[in-house]
Parts: sequence; structure tokens; C-alpha cells
Amino acid sequence: MVFERPEAGRRRVIIEQVEPQVNNGRFPIKRTVGETVTVDADVFTDGHDRIHCKLLYRSEHQAEWHKTSMKPLVNDCWQGAFQVHDVGRYYYTVTAWIDHFASWSHDLKRRTESHDIAIALLTGAELVDAAVRRAQKSDAKKLKQFAQLLRSNGDNNAQLDTAMDSELAQLMSRYADPDLVTVYDRELVVVVDPALARFGAWYEAFPRSCSAEPGCHGTFADCEARLPYIAAMGFDVLYLPPIHPIGLTKRKGPNNSLTANDHDPGSPWAIGSKEGGHLSVHAELGTLKEFRSLVALAREHKLEIAMDIAFQCSPDHPYVAEHPAWFKHRPDGSVQYAENPPKKYEDIYPFDFESADWQNLWTELEGVFRFWIEQGVRVFRVDNPHTKSFNFWEWAIGRIKHDHPESLFLAEAFTRPKVLRYLAKAGFSQSYNYFPGAIPNTKSPQYLTQLTQSAEREYLRPNLWPNTPDILTEYLQYGGRSAFMIRFALAATLGASYGIYGPAFELFDNAPREPGSEEYLDSEKYQIRYWELHRHDSLKDYITRINRIRRENPALQHDWTLQFHDVDNDALICYSKSTDDLTNIILVMVNLDPHHTQSGWLNIPLDVLGLDADHSFQVHDLLSNARYIWNGPRNYVELDPQIVPAHIFRLRKRVRSERDFDYYM
Amino acid sequence: MVFERPEAGRRRVIIEQVEPQVNNGRFPIKRTVGETVTVDADVFTDGHDRIHCKLLYRSEHQAEWHKTSMKPLVNDCWQGAFQVHDVGRYYYTVTAWIDHFASWSHDLKRRTESHDIAIALLTGAELVDAAVRRAQKSDAKKLKQFAQLLRSNGDNNAQLDTAMDSELAQLMSRYADPDLVTVYDRELVVVVDPALARFGAWYEAFPRSCSAEPGCHGTFADCEARLPYIAAMGFDVLYLPPIHPIGLTKRKGPNNSLTANDHDPGSPWAIGSKEGGHLSVHAELGTLKEFRSLVALAREHKLEIAMDIAFQCSPDHPYVAEHPAWFKHRPDGSVQYAENPPKKYEDIYPFDFESADWQNLWTELEGVFRFWIEQGVRVFRVDNPHTKSFNFWEWAIGRIKHDHPESLFLAEAFTRPKVLRYLAKAGFSQSYNYFPGAIPNTKSPQYLTQLTQSAEREYLRPNLWPNTPDILTEYLQYGGRSAFMIRFALAATLGASYGIYGPAFELFDNAPREPGSEEYLDSEKYQIRYWELHRHDSLKDYITRINRIRRENPALQHDWTLQFHDVDNDALICYSKSTDDLTNIILVMVNLDPHHTQSGWLNIPLDVLGLDADHSFQVHDLLSNARYIWNGPRNYVELDPQIVPAHIFRLRKRVRSERDFDYYM
Repeated sequence: MVFERPEAGRRRVIIEQVEPQVNNGRFPIKRTVGETVTVDADVFTDGHDRIHCKLLYRSEHQAEWHKTSMKPLVNDCWQGAFQVHDVGRYYYTVTAWIDHFASWSHDLKRRTESHDIAIALLTGAELVDAAVRRAQKSDAKKLKQFAQLLRSNGDNNAQLDTAMDSELAQLMSRYADPDLVTVYDRELVVVVDPALARFGAWYEAFPRSCSAEPGCHGTFADCEARLPYIAAMGFDVLYLPPIHPIGLTKRKGPNNSLTANDHDPGSPWAIGSKEGGHLSVHAELGTLKEFRSLVALAREHKLEIAMDIAFQCSPDHPYVAEHPAWFKHRPDGSVQYAENPPKKYEDIYPFDFESADWQNLWTELEGVFRFWIEQGVRVFRVDNPHTKSFNFWEWAIGRIKHDHPESLFLAEAFTRPKVLRYLAKAGFSQSYNYFPGAIPNTKSPQYLTQLTQSAEREYLRPNLWPNTPDILTEYLQYGGRSAFMIRFALAATLGASYGIYGPAFELFDNAPREPGSEEYLDSEKYQIRYWELHRHDSLKDYITRINRIRRENPALQHDWTLQFHDVDNDALICYSKSTDDLTNIILVMVNLDPHHTQSGWLNIPLDVLGLDADHSFQVHDLLSNARYIWNGPRNYVELDPQIVPAHIFRLRKRVRSERDFDYYM
Repeated sequence: MVFERPEAGRRRVIIEQVEPQVNNGRFPIKRTVGETVTVDADVFTDGHDRIHCKLLYRSEHQAEWHKTSMKPLVNDCWQGAFQVHDVGRYYYTVTAWIDHFASWSHDLKRRTESHDIAIALLTGAELVDAAVRRAQKSDAKKLKQFAQLLRSNGDNNAQLDTAMDSELAQLMSRYADPDLVTVYDRELVVVVDPALARFGAWYEAFPRSCSAEPGCHGTFADCEARLPYIAAMGFDVLYLPPIHPIGLTKRKGPNNSLTANDHDPGSPWAIGSKEGGHLSVHAELGTLKEFRSLVALAREHKLEIAMDIAFQCSPDHPYVAEHPAWFKHRPDGSVQYAENPPKKYEDIYPFDFESADWQNLWTELEGVFRFWIEQGVRVFRVDNPHTKSFNFWEWAIGRIKHDHPESLFLAEAFTRPKVLRYLAKAGFSQSYNYFPGAIPNTKSPQYLTQLTQSAEREYLRPNLWPNTPDILTEYLQYGGRSAFMIRFALAATLGASYGIYGPAFELFDNAPREPGSEEYLDSEKYQIRYWELHRHDSLKDYITRINRIRRENPALQHDWTLQFHDVDNDALICYSKSTDDLTNIILVMVNLDPHHTQSGWLNIPLDVLGLDADHSFQVHDLLSNARYIWNGPRNYVELDPQIVPAHIFRLRKRVRSERDFDYYM
């Protein structure tokens, strides 16, 4: 209560509005290894005294704070920054105090009367005396000498020189009176993830469709054989839909039909049979040992295997009999299946997170993650997390990342904005989002700008998917091969993290189950598909090229510099990304119309991109390898979607030196 | 830590972003008696269940929460409201739970299969059974009957009617399972002040200049004689500069000269002499008893006396000898005077809030307020609060308002924006601000819009002063009588709270000490002035009229509905205020040019003001009593500053009834 006298009423500095923080520090912010945390704070005191303000930070493995001075910006806002080097948690806070020595020094310079100056020099000596009492031995000795010099009866000029000595100022800044130091009332948390949380290309594939033989059930061994194909395209993550035993009861047939024939494989999301549940492997795919081998071999191809974690059960899941308390029961004694009346999903039993036995349920589910981590998995894609208890996610992800800070969690939360955001706050490393439907349309730049420029970016990392096994957009259905090229260029250059569901994507499979549906016809969710990977019209070379451009250009490996630029044709979209030091600037231009050539004038802010309005610059199309010389901000572009629907320009400033082969950086 | 299992892991509803709150609930919001607190919160759960959400509130004198249901708006935002009736503190928070009965009922309506419906009815009966166990006796009985009806083997239609019975729904909403109820993690605070904190006209006058005789030192008795004059103009607060003994040492002479003659009265802000300090009365003004009599008589005139509290001492203040620890000392043993090198203010000793004896200092200063409250004072204007410890203010005002919730504190914090705001957060009821210099200029509407429309309004109440003894703006210096009329109209209609420093204001005293200075020539701060109150050109009748308009029109008694409207002439400014129910709408038009007639077309948003675009409406100028009929949003206005520089229109809709004398409401 304010009615109590505060413990440290002499501390006159106020620290407030420390940013970044999420829900007032209730949740951590996120960074990846090597990134910077820039901290702003409003810091001020009564009166006119000078302030010293420090940013304190440490990793969870360090007991002592690192300290770095913050600089005043305008309007009582102070700023400091630190870099995070290790995965795990970092902590930061702000501390500040009245710098009496700096105030004294500031005033001294303005004093004009010699009597005044003489008194002020003695005041300064008293300040130094006080610091001597707090200083380490060697510093104390030096400070004592300074105090003597300030007191010496010599000419004022020599004393003034002493007063302004920068070594003295530095020593004095080290020994503030700790009784008068204000410390911000919270320690804020950064969760530091591996770089893959920020930058990665994902490829989703059904392992059962990986057989080289048409009509055969794919195996982990088939997946191993598929690795070179996926790795060669430049992907970083191979995400597999669930690999567990599939239920028989109420199993769905092809195209989600209510009855399955004996040979129908069922949906891998109907998890569990008498062979086992979330800790077991579907026998037709292989053994646990073979799965471990796949994970290890993938890593040799620089591919992480992402597991799909779908916390739901088929009626045949062992949990149903072993833990009836984890499910809701109907008055007739049957287990409550998933439903959205009048629709029923009788092949799926959801967990009851209001169960009286919730503590054992949580422990068991957390254990599922831990089990697969023991098999070598580091990356998890979580199915529909927004239909499970948010408190469970926060608890489970917090604990797992405490022990395995390299682990990553992608939330498949295609849901309402605040729910989507809350899951990111609660701990998910990355989030699916509205990208599949959001581009192309007129709101797209606003949406991407919100994702990458608002405070939301402190905790939510978007992963952009043009398609998923559940989402075949109308745009892809009607736009032909060009539409897939357009959507791919957008996803891979707008998002440092993106993913495709393949081979449906590179083979531009675009037949919907029925008109108006976003479901695939003959979806792999319910049947095994055979894909002709080496069809001449496959997009694999296009994908490979763009993934190489991503790897070679650091500008595309971050999202926070994304900026949209004006084009005078709504069918064209133009944006740039750059490194902070502007040594790598990528300008992307995409024709959103998959049918017609479109052209227009674009307007780029030269100053923001560090370009000189008076000199020409080169734009090097990394897709076509063509180079153009541009002058000024306004430039003409034309794109034929039947050839290549995008330019991915690297901007090169003119460098007037023979060292550079083509005179452009 | 998140690594602990939360105590109540079964509670699936999330409550976040509860608004209003200041610094995440660290500080209270403010209201006046009778006002409403509208609370927004983001509330959601996993899955598709229905939610019930309640706003809880209570005054500090109530142990039990009042509860009111919140309504869902869009995007998972819920809203509720409550009214505050008493001065003092109110508390509020939000609570929510999954409404299983509502989910059940929602689903039931959508079920189509009769077997399904039969099972669902039994499920419903089980939900009712559970509520029976939590219900009060009479409700339990009713619920039991409902459960029986749901189970009865009759026709489904009768059972469905039972299921949809509104009494059942209401009973069920009353008995949520308390184990599953989420309560927001903070209780937020409202400080409720008397209406005067929101709406009041202030008049500042130096008591020593109140004598009816030129050249005489005014007394409290003279002030009493002056009350009818001030009350007749319609003011609510009479604010007196400090009334304490004035120091002799280093006393300032007229126009802030460094030497004073024997007969110079000195600055009342140089507080303290051998006769006493902050608890004493300057002998030439009268006695403490006479002061009490003034306070009481003023109240009979519906005027509150506002005391000036300036926590600083003249060198002669008894504190200097009695409490040397409360001041800084220079190395020569002298007390440190106020200074801003090379400027010195040797007549003023500031308190040292870093004093080791700070606890006694705080207690003493808090006691100053309490002493004057005992003498009958309720309103305090605090001099330069931004040069005293912020923690002190929060502590002292919190304690005083705890015992005297009717007390009010106006912060004279002409300082940087974040400092000004922090003092308001820390407890000041009202704040001086940038109004004196801010209008007229092009930024003014933005500034007033920020004050009245941003989240800042939850804790900061502006009090608008066109002049103070320290501020005679250039605009007033050069604009003549019209400039004073313009500034007055703006202050009194833009601000529900405003003040003037008189009689300098109504007599449009506009001579600066020197060119370029904002100080008054022959300022009352350093000398006694005699004012010819009944000069024929005094603005007192104009002031009286506008104060009467303020009292008669509730639209002008609040700030939150302020809206600026477009005019096609920058010399004209147009804005409106209205009551929430739009029964009182005031449209103000001011010519900011004190020299020339200005005219223009204004554009008012008819829909926002509840006016019908198809019908004419009347604008009734409450200043001139002229009435005009306007059609549509675009209207012509012309104002001659030499006559009256403003219109204060009341908008009257056409009422087609004989009951209304002039057909307009």
C-alpha cells in the first residue's frame, strides 16, 4: 500500500515504462543467439540533477549482472542494449541514480564568481571523499589524490583542470552511493532460442507417401532416401505429420468419408491403437530405432526433423482404457468424442483439461515431448494448441525449455488474433498465422507490417505457409503454376521462416475436394499418394534458387527490417529487407496477378536504404542474374508471370574503387 | 516461476489487458462522484466453449464485491461498467469462467439426431445436478425440479422447452464451479474525488492586494470583503498565494531586484521568519482565527479557499535552525541556497530530500497539509512539486486522502511531459499544463485531444490557466483586451477546470517587466498592487456570463467529449462538447486573431452530435443570445474580436411538438 513509508524514501530517481516487456513482464520476450536486446526506459528525477542510468543483464548461468550505461534520447527516455550469446534465459533490468558529481561538474563550468568557485571546489572534494569510502583499494588511492588536488591552495585553474579530469569523472561514476540507487521493480526475461527459431525453411511431407514405388506404404527408410532431394532444395526442417499408430474405430476413408475400407490407412491425427499411442511408432513406418536413424541422418543433411504433436486420441488409444479420468464421459457411459453440433468427429477423443486428474495428465503430456527429445528430436509442430489449456502450454514449454533450451515449438494456431498471440506469449517459439489467406489482398502490407514492426514481434515469430494439408487457397486452385511461384516468392522473402507442404507444392497440386472447399482432393490426410518428383515442370529448381538466395543474403534472415514501398499498380507489391548496417539490401518486387504481365513505377526511399540520390546504383536480380542501373527513387518494372513473377534484387551502391570488380558493392 | 505447476491448472479462462489501468495497476485511475468506470478486458479460453465474464467492484467501505456481467464486444474484448457514488477508493477486477451450461444449451439447439438429443438432455441434467450442490436452498430446490424435468421420460419437445427456460439459464449462471473460475491477478484502484476535481473555475488573488484603500496591506478581512465580487463572477475556488511569514534575509525588492527596502513586503514564496513558518500566518494579513473565518465565509459564498503549499524556506525559517539536517550545507558551513549557476536564489533554501533525517522531514511536511485541513482548507495548490521527491508526494497525498478523501491537490508542475504525468500518477488531483503557451497555435487541438482522449485522462486532469503571476504570454502582451477575452473563452470552454490570476486578468494588465519577458511589470509577487475593480472596461461581466453558461450546461462540465471540427480559416478554431446522452451539445467557435474580423466555413459531424442531416437545427449563441437556423454540416461564421471574439452555441434539434416553446429542444 502507498500508505506505508517506502523503504528507501531517499531514492529520488523514477524508472518506468521499461520496454520491451510483454504483459508488464508477465511473459518473456524472445531473441535468437547473437541478436540484440535494445532497452528503453523513462528515467527522471525531481529538480535539475544529472542522472546516471545503467542497463543490467545476465544469462541464467551468471550470478552477477553485466552493466552497461544507457544514453539519454529525447523526452526523458534512456536507451541501452546488450547482445545474447547463449540459448536459455537472460534477465534484464534498469538501475539509475542521481549523479551528484556530474551535477556538480555541470554547475562548476557555469560558475563565474571566484568565491563561488572556491567553495564549489571544496564541495567537489567532499563528494570525492564520500566515494573514497565506497571505492576499491587502488581506486580509493587515486580518488584521495584527486580530493587533495581539489583542496590544494594553488591557482584555481589547476584545480579546475583537476575537477574536469576525465579519469576522475570515470572513477566517480563507479562509486555511486548504493543507498540512493533506484532499481526497477521487476527483472524482465528474454528467452534465447537457436537461430533456427528466426530463420529457416520448412518442408512438410507425409512419410507414408515417401515410397519410391507407387501404391506402397512409405517407411522411415524411404524417408531417408528422400532426404537428399529435400536437402538439395535448401530446406532446414523436415516436418512429419504424426508417426504414431492410427486408430481403427470410426477410421475415416479417402476424402474424409465416414467409412474406411480395410486397406485405407486412416488419418495420422487419429492417434493410438492397441499397438500404442503418443510414445509409439506406426508399425508400417518402421521401428523407433529406424526413426532415430532418420533423425540422425537428416541432421547430417543439415535438416532437423520436426515432430507433429497432436494431443488427442483415437477411441483405440491405450489412454482411453488406462486413464478414463482424462476424458469426458456421456451419461450413457461412452467417451465424449469431438463435436461441433451437428458435426461429429467420432474418430477423435479430446482430453478433458478440467479433469480432476489434471496433474497426471499434464505430466504425461509433458513426458511425450521429453520422450521424443530423447530420440533426438528438437523441433515440434504442435497441432491445434488453441484447443488445449493455455496454462498447460506455459507450464510444459517452460519446463522443457529449461532443460532443453535448444528445443523449438511451432504453434498451429489458426485461430482468433488474441488467442494466437497468447499462445506465443505462453511460450511457443513460432506461430502459424493468417499468411495463407492474407496475401495477396490489399490488407497484406498492413498485416505483415503489424507482425514485423509492432510490439508483438517481441514474442511472436511468424512462420509463413502458402499451403498446408488443410489449406489449399482459392488463389492456388485457380492461378496455375504461376500462382505457386508467386506465393513461394512471397513466403520465402517476406518471412525469414516459412514452410511449404510438399511435394504437393512443388508439383502445384491444386485440385480441391469440391468447389468452394480449401481441402485437397484425395488428400494425403486420408490416403497414400505417389508423387512424380522429377516431373519436368516441377518448381524444385525455382525453390532451390530462392532458398540459396535466402542463405546468401542476411537481409532475408530477419523480419524486423521489412518495409513496403509504393508502386503505382495494385497488382504489384514491392518491399525491402536489409541488414542493420545496410551492407545487404534486398528489394523484392512480385506480380500478384498469375495471369497477366503487369508493369508499374515504384518509389523507393533512397535515404532509408542508405542510397545516394545523386548517384546511380545497381539492382542485381538474384533470380535471373540480370543487372540494371537505376537512378533516383522512381523506377519502372515489368513482370510476366509466365516467365518469372518476381524480382529479388540485391541493391548495390556504386563503389568508386578498382578493388571492386564491377564498381558496385 | 512458470516452472511450478500453477495452483489452479484446471482454470481454462485467460483474462488479460484489463483497462483502464495506469502503469499496470501500480497507480489508481481517477473519477469524480457520479462518474462511470467502463472496464474492458480480453477474455478467452481454449476451444469453443462459451464464457461468462463479470466485473467485480466495491468501495473501500464495502467488504463484498458487487458483480455485474460484462458483454462481449468484438475480437475477444469484453466490457462492463460501474458508477462510483462516494469519495474515497473503489476497487475493481474481472472474473470469468467457462459457462458449461451455456455451451451445452448452444450445442443443444444445433443437434438434429433424436438419440443425440436424448443423451444431451441427460448431460444437461448432470450439469444441473452439479449446480444443485453449490446452490442456496431455495435455488437448489428449483434446480432439482429442472433436473427432474430434463430427465423425465416424456416427449422431447417438453424437455427441450425446459432446457431453454430462461429461469434455468439464470439460475445456472449463478452457480459456476468456483474451482474453475479465473480471477484477474490484480485488484485495480479508483480514487474518487468530489466533483470539484472535475469541474471548477479558479480565481487566484494576492490577499495583501485586497485592501480597498490604495497603498494599504490587505488583510483577511479585506479578502472577506472581496468575496462577493469574486463569487458574483461565478468562481468556485479562490486560490491564495502563501499566507505565511515572509523572510527578511536576502528579501527581494520590486521587480525581483536583489535589494529590498524596509517597506518592501517581499515574496510570499520566501516562507518563514522568526514569527514562524508553514504553520503560521503572516501577521499583517491577520490571525489564524481570522483565516478560519475567511475559509468559512468563503464557503457560504460557495467558494473553496485553495492554499498554496510551497515546500521551501527563507533563510529565516525556524526549520533552518531547528532541523539543520533537512538542508544541504556548503563546506563553509552555510546552508545551500537554491541556484542554477550562474543564477542564485539566496532568499530560498530548498529541503534536502536525500537527508538522513528524511523520515522526520516527510512527517513534518505531511503535517503541514493536515494542519491546514484542520483550519477548514480542502484544496491545495502545490508549488513546484517537480522539485521535491516524487515518492514523498505519493506517500503524503495517499495518506492524507485516506483520511480526507474530499481533499484536492493541484500540481503546479510546469515541467517536462513525463514528469508532469508522473506527478499526476503519484496522486495529484489536477495538473497545470502547457495550455498557457499552447493556444493559439497549430498544435493546440492535438495537445487538447491528447489531454482529453488518450489513456492519460484516466489519471491526469488538466486545469487550464491563461495567465498566472509567473506567466504573461506574448499573446496577452500584444493582443489587448480582445486577447484576454479570447484566452478566457478558450480556457473556460476547453477545460471543465480552468483558472485565472486576477484582478490582473479581468483588468487585462499586460505590461511585461521587460521586452521578451513573461514576467509582469511591478509583479504582485514582490509588491502590493491596488486594482480598480470597477473600471468600466473590466471583463468581469464577460467572465460572469461565461461562468453562468458553464454552470447551466453540463456539456462544459466534463472534458472527455471534446472534439475539434474543421474550419477553412486557420484563425478560427471550432470544437464541441456534449453530454453522453447528447441532450446538451455546446459548439464553440473562437476567433484567435485579436485584431481582425475573421470568417470561415465550418464542417461539423452531424451524426456524431446526433443531428439529422435532413432537418434544420438551431444554434443558440449563449453569449449574445442570438439564434440561427442551420442546415447540414457546412455553415458560415464571422467573428469581430472588437465586439465578441467567440460564439458559444447550444445546438438545439427541432422538436415537432407544441410543448416546446420555440420548437427546438
